[in-house]
Amino acid sequence: MVTLYDYLDSGNGYKVRLLLALLGQPYRWVELDIMQGQTRTSKFLAKNANGRIPTLELEDGICIAESNAILWYLGEGTAFDPQDRLVRAQMLQWMFFEQYSHEPFVATPRFIVKHLPADSPRRAELPKRLEQGRAALTVMESHLGTHRFLIGERHTIADIALYAYTHVAHEATLDLTPYSNVRAWLGHVEAHPRHVPITYRPS
Amino acid sequence: MVTLYDYLDSGNGYKVRLLLALLGQPYRWVELDIMQGQTRTSKFLAKNANGRIPTLELEDGICIAESNAILWYLGEGTAFDPQDRLVRAQMLQWMFFEQYSHEPFVATPRFIVKHLPADSPRRAELPKRLEQGRAALTVMESHLGTHRFLIGERHTIADIALYAYTHVAHEATLDLTPYSNVRAWLGHVEAHPRHVPITYRPS
Repeated sequence: MVTLYDYLDSGNGYKVRLLLALLGQPYRWVELDIMQGQTRTSKFLAKNANGRIPTLELEDGICIAESNAILWYLGEGTAFDPQDRLVRAQMLQWMFFEQYSHEPFVATPRFIVKHLPADSPRRAELPKRLEQGRAALTVMESHLGTHRFLIGERHTIADIALYAYTHVAHEATLDLTPYSNVRAWLGHVEAHPRHVPITYRPS
Repeated sequence: MVTLYDYLDSGNGYKVRLLLALLGQPYRWVELDIMQGQTRTSKFLAKNANGRIPTLELEDGICIAESNAILWYLGEGTAFDPQDRLVRAQMLQWMFFEQYSHEPFVATPRFIVKHLPADSPRRAELPKRLEQGRAALTVMESHLGTHRFLIGERHTIADIALYAYTHVAHEATLDLTPYSNVRAWLGHVEAHPRHVPITYRPS
């Protein structure tokens, strides 16, 4: 059985929990408190030299880091991975968009607002980050005007990657009201019968 | 024949030019001046709603954005893509690391230093970005102490993705002297007989 090192409030960790729930795949879940430095111990750095959750440990001890690489590994060959060269490239295009143009401007402001003290100097980063967050949402809004999911009619790991922080964008003070296509798409993702919320804690 | 929309000094664009050179694949090359807004025209935004180079246009007009998704598309099934589930996940792990933990802290400082005026307010971002750039180089240094390439003995698209900005880190004022394993790895990548430099302009 694989082990997932995670932190409950992490959208990056939630991506993996959500895919595992959709697949009905059992796993061992280990929560590390990132606020207390539990991902910076020498024991954990031996698993992931970049010191971040989520990290997936396979039965033989090999570890995979980076949430979207873990989604790829767990999703390969399942219904959430259309095995077509062009479609896979488009799926990866959205997943790299997520990490470069979305996560730092939606997830990071959410972290600053939700987890740092009200007088944190990092609050000065918010206006610029939120502006870029709205730009990312606008790119999604435009695309989702003509697509039910990011890749046409298929629910793929790209949707899981972008759903994770988009659906809690309000916690970053990003108002989704103007993004009606994005809100409709959130509903399509949530309609899966095995969908679980970000607060889902594996037993 | 595919068309690559690019900007000569972009490391992200260079990734694609380098892989195409290694593969010996002919293509049409269109340079857009990102400093003059040529990626923000309505004509280009119809190809890539995120308004960025590189963007690859296929013969039928379909476009793929995000440098690492393009590497995936062009590399799939070639010698630079080991077709093994675990190895592919590890390759993608490094490519997501590149976009999230390396590019904003190596490529962005290089852009600020090289392309913005000396009195640009963005220079204030440099100390923090360079600190994170050194952290990324340290992760690579540790891994490359026991690996010839990022994925063991194989030269893959993950090496191309990370080589692009690492080899010009000095242009971001990041000194590679302390990172001897990284410097040795740069040499292994450059040893390929079809290697081309970042200044390579397709005819």
